[in-house]
Amino acid sequence: MKREGILFVISAPSGAGKTTLCKEVIDIFPNLRHSVSYTTRSARPGEVHGRDYFFVSLDEFKGMVAADEFAEWAEVHGNFYGTALKTLEDYRAQGIDVILDIDCQGAHQLKKKYQGAVYLFVLPPSYQELRRRLDCRSLDAPEVIDRRIEAAAGEIRESRWYDYIIVNDVFSKAVEELKSVLIAEQCKTTRVLAGVSELFDI
Amino acid sequence: MKREGILFVISAPSGAGKTTLCKEVIDIFPNLRHSVSYTTRSARPGEVHGRDYFFVSLDEFKGMVAADEFAEWAEVHGNFYGTALKTLEDYRAQGIDVILDIDCQGAHQLKKKYQGAVYLFVLPPSYQELRRRLDCRSLDAPEVIDRRIEAAAGEIRESRWYDYIIVNDVFSKAVEELKSVLIAEQCKTTRVLAGVSELFDI
Repeated sequence: MKREGILFVISAPSGAGKTTLCKEVIDIFPNLRHSVSYTTRSARPGEVHGRDYFFVSLDEFKGMVAADEFAEWAEVHGNFYGTALKTLEDYRAQGIDVILDIDCQGAHQLKKKYQGAVYLFVLPPSYQELRRRLDCRSLDAPEVIDRRIEAAAGEIRESRWYDYIIVNDVFSKAVEELKSVLIAEQCKTTRVLAGVSELFDI
Repeated sequence: MKREGILFVISAPSGAGKTTLCKEVIDIFPNLRHSVSYTTRSARPGEVHGRDYFFVSLDEFKGMVAADEFAEWAEVHGNFYGTALKTLEDYRAQGIDVILDIDCQGAHQLKKKYQGAVYLFVLPPSYQELRRRLDCRSLDAPEVIDRRIEAAAGEIRESRWYDYIIVNDVFSKAVEELKSVLIAEQCKTTRVLAGVSELFDI
């Protein structure tokens, strides 16, 4: 019996490094895909439609919400983000593991529907370091950075209900930890037994 | 706050390779120790008292049982094996992680006392391969091997209640999986929060 795909949900305050971490592990695991979210925000330089996000208009997004096409959606810093239900269900049925890089509100919605999913939170080593990273990134105006730092405190408190916390201090160590969680979850008894129970009459 | 040491309990039928696997990871993690068990069986060539086991007489063993000095003990294939309570408690208080290489009966006893411990089961890829490995090891007489194979079926059925199952087919992959479980468990939210909750006011 082929096991179902595992859903890994990963959240973090902006600037903690979750997107870079996710990209790193996608290249390592052939059976792992990144779930591409829909968003109403503008593409940043280098971002590609269909690879990083599906960039849609506010009207298109609202249409999908009305048609109940999202497994989760949320408004974050004035923009909308959502994960299509179909994406998750297709991967799961094919036994492909999926990594979802979404904010806490979205993760919270998923937690109610997907009990079997694995929830990870990425923490920066400190608030000072988070601000330094957001400043260096030079993606946002100073007032946007202030808003992100303010939001971070609330988001970080949400980490309590996640299954795992990865502190992204030394990047290579954080990658190693994320990789380990992905491998360890594949070794969970219920998942392994789905594949070997007949062989051993368990 | 320093976190408590984690107790990793690992079981397998004889010949599945758990002792070799444990030795491999002990060398990698500086904060991980092997818990040395007491046994009444004779030392095999190369085994060292105090490193591999504490080799004791049946009378000494029974004395320790009577004095309630064991966290778990069991009779396996005609010999007695036990883990001293003091060993586990000392490591735990010092924040040192411990790996315990014990049989299913002993693991079952621990499960009642140590809910927070992590239970791993090592499976051979098949019964045929298990017999081949026991034959190659040339440690046991043919009738002992027959007894071990017979016992294996019962032990393997116990794997159901363990947290993780590692199938030891390709050794390097099994090492990677065991390493991953050890790292992932250190990233479990409750354990990480013990260290960072003050920093982030979580």
